[in-house]
Amino acid sequence: MNFSSDNWAGALPQVAEALVKHASGFATAYGQSDLDKRVEQLFNEIFEREVAVFFVATGTAANSLSMALLNRPGGVIFAQTKAHMIEDEGGAVEFLTAGARLHGVEGEKGKIDPDNLERAIRLFPAEFVHHGQPMAVSITQSTEIGTVYSLEEIEKIGAVAKAHSLPLHMDGARFANALVSLGTTPAEMTWKRGVDVVSFGGTKNGCWCAEAVVVMDPARARDMPFIRKRSAQLFSKSRFIAAQFEAYLSNGLWLDTARHSNAMAQELAEVFRTSAHSRIAWMPDANEVFPIIRDPQAKRLMDAGVNFYDWNPPAGLALEPDEKLYRFVTSFATRKEDIEAIRSIMSA
Amino acid sequence: MNFSSDNWAGALPQVAEALVKHASGFATAYGQSDLDKRVEQLFNEIFEREVAVFFVATGTAANSLSMALLNRPGGVIFAQTKAHMIEDEGGAVEFLTAGARLHGVEGEKGKIDPDNLERAIRLFPAEFVHHGQPMAVSITQSTEIGTVYSLEEIEKIGAVAKAHSLPLHMDGARFANALVSLGTTPAEMTWKRGVDVVSFGGTKNGCWCAEAVVVMDPARARDMPFIRKRSAQLFSKSRFIAAQFEAYLSNGLWLDTARHSNAMAQELAEVFRTSAHSRIAWMPDANEVFPIIRDPQAKRLMDAGVNFYDWNPPAGLALEPDEKLYRFVTSFATRKEDIEAIRSIMSA
Amino acid sequence: MNFSSDNWAGALPQVAEALVKHASGFATAYGQSDLDKRVEQLFNEIFEREVAVFFVATGTAANSLSMALLNRPGGVIFAQTKAHMIEDEGGAVEFLTAGARLHGVEGEKGKIDPDNLERAIRLFPAEFVHHGQPMAVSITQSTEIGTVYSLEEIEKIGAVAKAHSLPLHMDGARFANALVSLGTTPAEMTWKRGVDVVSFGGTKNGCWCAEAVVVMDPARARDMPFIRKRSAQLFSKSRFIAAQFEAYLSNGLWLDTARHSNAMAQELAEVFRTSAHSRIAWMPDANEVFPIIRDPQAKRLMDAGVNFYDWNPPAGLALEPDEKLYRFVTSFATRKEDIEAIRSIMSA
Amino acid sequence: MNFSSDNWAGALPQVAEALVKHASGFATAYGQSDLDKRVEQLFNEIFEREVAVFFVATGTAANSLSMALLNRPGGVIFAQTKAHMIEDEGGAVEFLTAGARLHGVEGEKGKIDPDNLERAIRLFPAEFVHHGQPMAVSITQSTEIGTVYSLEEIEKIGAVAKAHSLPLHMDGARFANALVSLGTTPAEMTWKRGVDVVSFGGTKNGCWCAEAVVVMDPARARDMPFIRKRSAQLFSKSRFIAAQFEAYLSNGLWLDTARHSNAMAQELAEVFRTSAHSRIAWMPDANEVFPIIRDPQAKRLMDAGVNFYDWNPPAGLALEPDEKLYRFVTSFATRKEDIEAIRSIMSA
Repeated sequence: MNFSSDNWAGALPQVAEALVKHASGFATAYGQSDLDKRVEQLFNEIFEREVAVFFVATGTAANSLSMALLNRPGGVIFAQTKAHMIEDEGGAVEFLTAGARLHGVEGEKGKIDPDNLERAIRLFPAEFVHHGQPMAVSITQSTEIGTVYSLEEIEKIGAVAKAHSLPLHMDGARFANALVSLGTTPAEMTWKRGVDVVSFGGTKNGCWCAEAVVVMDPARARDMPFIRKRSAQLFSKSRFIAAQFEAYLSNGLWLDTARHSNAMAQELAEVFRTSAHSRIAWMPDANEVFPIIRDPQAKRLMDAGVNFYDWNPPAGLALEPDEKLYRFVTSFATRKEDIEAIRSIMSA
Repeated sequence: MNFSSDNWAGALPQVAEALVKHASGFATAYGQSDLDKRVEQLFNEIFEREVAVFFVATGTAANSLSMALLNRPGGVIFAQTKAHMIEDEGGAVEFLTAGARLHGVEGEKGKIDPDNLERAIRLFPAEFVHHGQPMAVSITQSTEIGTVYSLEEIEKIGAVAKAHSLPLHMDGARFANALVSLGTTPAEMTWKRGVDVVSFGGTKNGCWCAEAVVVMDPARARDMPFIRKRSAQLFSKSRFIAAQFEAYLSNGLWLDTARHSNAMAQELAEVFRTSAHSRIAWMPDANEVFPIIRDPQAKRLMDAGVNFYDWNPPAGLALEPDEKLYRFVTSFATRKEDIEAIRSIMSA
Repeated sequence: MNFSSDNWAGALPQVAEALVKHASGFATAYGQSDLDKRVEQLFNEIFEREVAVFFVATGTAANSLSMALLNRPGGVIFAQTKAHMIEDEGGAVEFLTAGARLHGVEGEKGKIDPDNLERAIRLFPAEFVHHGQPMAVSITQSTEIGTVYSLEEIEKIGAVAKAHSLPLHMDGARFANALVSLGTTPAEMTWKRGVDVVSFGGTKNGCWCAEAVVVMDPARARDMPFIRKRSAQLFSKSRFIAAQFEAYLSNGLWLDTARHSNAMAQELAEVFRTSAHSRIAWMPDANEVFPIIRDPQAKRLMDAGVNFYDWNPPAGLALEPDEKLYRFVTSFATRKEDIEAIRSIMSA
Repeated sequence: MNFSSDNWAGALPQVAEALVKHASGFATAYGQSDLDKRVEQLFNEIFEREVAVFFVATGTAANSLSMALLNRPGGVIFAQTKAHMIEDEGGAVEFLTAGARLHGVEGEKGKIDPDNLERAIRLFPAEFVHHGQPMAVSITQSTEIGTVYSLEEIEKIGAVAKAHSLPLHMDGARFANALVSLGTTPAEMTWKRGVDVVSFGGTKNGCWCAEAVVVMDPARARDMPFIRKRSAQLFSKSRFIAAQFEAYLSNGLWLDTARHSNAMAQELAEVFRTSAHSRIAWMPDANEVFPIIRDPQAKRLMDAGVNFYDWNPPAGLALEPDEKLYRFVTSFATRKEDIEAIRSIMSA
């Protein structure tokens, strides 16, 4: 039973099939094949407008190249203090933008607080070269701790960004999980709320490698082909990314998969919330569950072969001496019987 | 019939199967799975020594990250004037090294001439900061124009590099094709001749996306995990690269595939060499054929649905007014009947 | 009366004379002149060991190139949260290192707390590529808020850095002010306490443009000539930097000048501490004074033509509604009568 | 007698005086002083239009930051094969643009041939990401070998650049020497012929450190303050650069100085042209002389204490076995008696 991360899971059967289906035959390389074009059209339909789509190899690449596109000299990016771009890209954002900086903005539940964002941006007055210049705002949807921005929350942040003429980026490594959690559409969750660029992730939700930068205004993406190429992110056999996205985005597979993961997370959270040996740090909106478990029970889980990570408790979360905070991530590969097995251990 | 490039072909059935086989189950992310470890062991066996292996997304990445590893401030890389790294990486080498420069070295048949290399390196005297400092030598095996360095030629270049304390890199986007052309082993073609780092390509020879940087001395690779991560080239579901390499490198699949491509190239070259309507610019050593075809016959080929690119003639190659130089690339997907079809057109 | 910054002052007469003296005649360019060599020798004497010295154009350059020298892929630099390198270099450190990151460490009085430093470094476990790798620790001496690390404090930080095999850098934009404040020697304040690289500033203390990177172990500086050149920081007529340093470092001019500035700061602080209209936020160790002044009196100062900046109060500093925090910087050009003039206004 | 380089000379007396004059008093730092503003106005007058001016520390910085301003992802700069930016910036252009590449264009007498330029640009078809995208054309005026583009030649290159929507940069490290050689005005030599950005050098012509980037269209320079700051090229005591430029540009000092240098070069060239022991490789237009001297006479010059560099002969220049090519550079500090001394040796 593996709850370490959704990227420890493999690939959806439909994605694997799509890869096999396109293994034979010839296709124009470097993103110019008919299949690539067809998938670009799929993105247009999903976002209900003409967008520019660029496949890349990793979520780190999607985030970093988004920032490279929006880059300005001395540029400063505003992101939540615990955002993946700040904590877990190994400096890729700074490197692939040739030196842009990330400025952490505090907020509850893993989200940027709009008032804090306003204050943070004001720390960089226009034309004061010593501090640098604001360049972009980035939010993560769903967040690093499994919460989801409401449409109103996105809109508020979008409004602050626009008031300062800053583009708004969404790190959508778990885009689908957030989308079905809100029960809304990609258009409503992005450009209709002020989002300009999305890192659109398929890997964590069942593809084996399918990440894309989606630019809402194609005119803005003019330099992106060169940014992607010079960053060594242009696949020659691009069709195999396209094939994954085609399977993923067709027949609602991506949404069904995300719904499954989220539902598993809800059930798992309920297990921890109601157990005498654990409590829940905060309820999940998407597919990541953060229980606080007493040490003996945590040991029993591990002994039973359940894999999961411990997690640094955020400031303000008080733990008993025999308690620790953990992270459980569900995915398309999480089965109902895995939850039941955990329930059985936790209720013992 | 497609001879545009070996990256227009899809994937070998065995590679596709391997991807499906590993689609289910959980595996540690970011290159730490058992399968990843097993494939690393495979590389050790193939190279007959312990090497350090780093999977990356593209051949451009393999070349650029190799150079980033060998980088020095003001660094200058010596490569053949028409090398892929100079002509076709879109500036990725310069960008991902934060400014290293490529210095073209002339030579016959797409290869670096060792005497020219010696002269080129001497243009950058030690400690003369204005010119920068030599940092690496890079050769392409097989070359951009389908020729292959002999072991003696590699050894000579390796000797020049070592005399100047410069590491030697091999761009092996078509490593297997060169290997079987020489009928030698990876060890003989690389470190036994002075090669320190290899861009090891599987994509053009039948994988869909399998490229690696192989560092002969693992101690030298200490910073490579960080270089790869900051360059956004660390796959989360790395097992799917590993799976391709496992299939590719097992049971001699990679060698058989390269032998097939090379054999097809030889046959195709023979067609053009013996046709009354064409001649051969130079005989292929690997899987790229460069015929000079008279315009009417070239048109007939195109009309018959044969795809191929025209090619800028190198200095010194004299063409008649009704002749043009073309490039035909063979691959695992090239069939004997395709060659026969071309023979039939060319002999008409 | 100008207390805006020590870089609003001009140049010491002796420095101006030195520039004139060396205006005629020929001298080898790019740092190879006899005068350059002589000044390098002066640095050896001052630091009581053979050091490597590199003149650069600005303090920003000295800091950024120090970091470029110590750089590692995915590198993380630890500096006090309010350090100049974090707040006021406009991204130069990140840019000129091609993406190194600055990690803020909290501490009282503008200094790094050694325990916080230890905790911060431990956030980046060895080989965990997602976070990046620790690369250097940097302290500012004197600090941004006019305090000075004691020798014991430097030693403690040096010990933490060494325990993690991290080099220790000192931003010495106001090196002389700290030195005379402690009444110690350059050797004692730097390498004898674990400092490996110093940004040695002369500009703020009376040169017009004299900044240098001083590397305690010359073997470590091997690549620095190339780093400086590729960063466009190698002066052709380098003799004019050397001439300034020669005048500055001869006959104790630099120390006398710093003593004057510091003394002026002490007197000024005393004025504010004892006035009924102001108090002192913290006593200065060097040449920057931070008074809290009531609004009417602040206005009177401004009306009298006194120039100074207001300053963001640090967390924990409580201000009355009619009070504000300000910064006054003294320099070689500050005269005793300026202090008296302020005293007269403040005691009215 | 020193003819090694014009940057081995010191500073004009008027420049030295200006530095002394501005040594006292307070002035706003970072380029905002009245003097800075006054000098900006001087540039407007000289160029007969409102321009944007940015002081930097070195000629390398002026060139590199000009390119950083014009930069595009995957960008390619076209410059003469032997241009300073290609041969002698130690990789600064590549580094400070984060990876732009320099593409050498051949041409006679150190100049770009417009037809070759056209051909070179066409090697990079629009949207072919693998090659990168053209980004700027750069000419050197006067050139590395002492020749000067005529106004017509500049216009032709400007026309090619504009036809491809590429900005035209002029490396004016020896701007004044070219200007008086042509007997024209800055406006005629630059924007009226299509030049968009100038590296305006004062150092080689008698300042000790005075270099600037001049952008003809200030709107285009919007990001330049941030580019300069992040490159560590913003002087705090900027007034001292301004002071040099004020003296340099006032009362025609810069033009008189350049006229003197050029005249000395003409006389020196005449000495070598008419001597039995030497000949002139090509006649100088500005202040660099390239004689071919027989070995015994060259030795006599050296023995007499004349300093000068030997020079790699360009392709096509045939030398006798006892001849070598040399470079002699004149400057404001070259005296008529130095020329006479050489004449006397060469006529012996």
